[in-house]
Amino acid sequence: MSGYSLMIHGGAGVIRNPERFEPSLHRIVSAGADLLERGGTARDAVSLCVTLLEDDPLYNAGFGSVLNADGVAECDAAIMDGRDLSAGAVAGVGRIKNPILAARTVMENSAHVFLIGAGAEAFARRNNVEMVPESYFQTPERLADLARAKARNETALDHVASQGAPSAKKLGTVGAVARDRAGNLAAATSTGGMTNKLPGRVGDSPVIGAGVFADNASCAVSCTGVGEHFLRTSLARTVGFLIEDLGLETQAATDEAIRRLVEKVSGVGALIVVGRDGVCARAQSTPGLLTASARDGVINVKTA
Amino acid sequence: MSGYSLMIHGGAGVIRNPERFEPSLHRIVSAGADLLERGGTARDAVSLCVTLLEDDPLYNAGFGSVLNADGVAECDAAIMDGRDLSAGAVAGVGRIKNPILAARTVMENSAHVFLIGAGAEAFARRNNVEMVPESYFQTPERLADLARAKARNETALDHVASQGAPSAKKLGTVGAVARDRAGNLAAATSTGGMTNKLPGRVGDSPVIGAGVFADNASCAVSCTGVGEHFLRTSLARTVGFLIEDLGLETQAATDEAIRRLVEKVSGVGALIVVGRDGVCARAQSTPGLLTASARDGVINVKTA
Repeated sequence: MSGYSLMIHGGAGVIRNPERFEPSLHRIVSAGADLLERGGTARDAVSLCVTLLEDDPLYNAGFGSVLNADGVAECDAAIMDGRDLSAGAVAGVGRIKNPILAARTVMENSAHVFLIGAGAEAFARRNNVEMVPESYFQTPERLADLARAKARNETALDHVASQGAPSAKKLGTVGAVARDRAGNLAAATSTGGMTNKLPGRVGDSPVIGAGVFADNASCAVSCTGVGEHFLRTSLARTVGFLIEDLGLETQAATDEAIRRLVEKVSGVGALIVVGRDGVCARAQSTPGLLTASARDGVINVKTA
Repeated sequence: MSGYSLMIHGGAGVIRNPERFEPSLHRIVSAGADLLERGGTARDAVSLCVTLLEDDPLYNAGFGSVLNADGVAECDAAIMDGRDLSAGAVAGVGRIKNPILAARTVMENSAHVFLIGAGAEAFARRNNVEMVPESYFQTPERLADLARAKARNETALDHVASQGAPSAKKLGTVGAVARDRAGNLAAATSTGGMTNKLPGRVGDSPVIGAGVFADNASCAVSCTGVGEHFLRTSLARTVGFLIEDLGLETQAATDEAIRRLVEKVSGVGALIVVGRDGVCARAQSTPGLLTASARDGVINVKTA
């Protein structure tokens, strides 16, 4: 058995008072590291970390998900296992407590990869994934965020349209990537999208190859940022190609992926990567990026 | 102005009486070739061809879409323009006559890439895309297909589970790829999915990088087959990497993509490609593949 590597993120953008995320990031990466230290799988570690990030109202995923223009949450999540490229994803779900667990259930209990909307919710319910009423997500904070966005007539379009100029808003998607002591890789991503978004809008988070990717042959990747930019560039999959086919080192591949994101579509966002070599890497085209990593007992929290 | 290239497909699988598709494929590729001959754009050509394929009940897209387990159509479509990587996609829509035109409207009239379900339908309606009642898709043929599938207790799972063994069912997704006389590339894909599918199930067709991809720097790609396999391997994007980063020729890249599909996930399906060099290529891991190509006035229909 070799060592383990784990990295989590809590979103990218212009982040006010980033130090307030430190205790939470430290606590959550530690929980995942404990699991990996005891010989747990990368799949279980990313699933656990993203579940904890979803349950923390600091982040825009699960409980903390922002509300769309209709005042409801529409959550997206995906998970991928690098051992066999199995994957599961859900999009546009508003009644599932932990969307990442629904995505995992799609991966493990169906022959499908991607389920959306009411069909995804019905599948999750049948598979005993914990359901909640829509009101679970309609917290005073998120209702106030939405009211502010509507008052300013600010829509998700404003984020996307600001190509090249990093958005002033926090893009608080969450994610985790891991390499376990058996050398297997896994990745998971979850988001509530963007405040006041058009109902039905889906970004990169639930899209295998865009917002999430894992293959033992190369790396595990989770992205955050303006989803449209990551969709158009298949950004998570790009890192895999750069490592497996072009022979780049993990950090160099991560930097090159962001360079291409900016070059090809003036993309705004960030990504975290664990390579097959166990190296944890991150890169960003945003001012801020919240991450925490754990490698063989050493924890490193970064909030810029 | 140089020449043009156009290729369309009408699905892959075990195809009974494939010769019955020949007149339709010839008519539709000719319409697209006429447009390109007159200097029309690749974007317009793939949009036109996929619209015509959607309107033809021979294919599993648009009017001919198969019905899900609830007896309704849930269509998916996507389009991508290789000039600037702009893209649009819709998934899980059942009230839009031509899903590819809704996807195009997402690309052209929103800052988004991917809209799903009722939100996508509302967006299409607001943008004057032609709407139809659900009954438009509930033709006697498709209702009979569904009744047969239910009587045999045959679900979409059966297609996916038959990994490695080509499904006995036709996988009739449609698509088009083109290079116009100005050298710009575009790709489009549209599908009704699989008969008796789980409501909410989405395959690769509406996913940028999985079932559709276009970049002037490399190629335009449209895929057909078991969507789950193409999602897990980002297959359309793979061809672009093989051409742009590894320097493969168009046909060699197309063959290599299918080789990887089979190697990585025992994948079942096919793809069509137009390279930046104007070469039309196809490859498949299925017994049958319906295609037609047109290059500078020469039309070539293949139904195996």
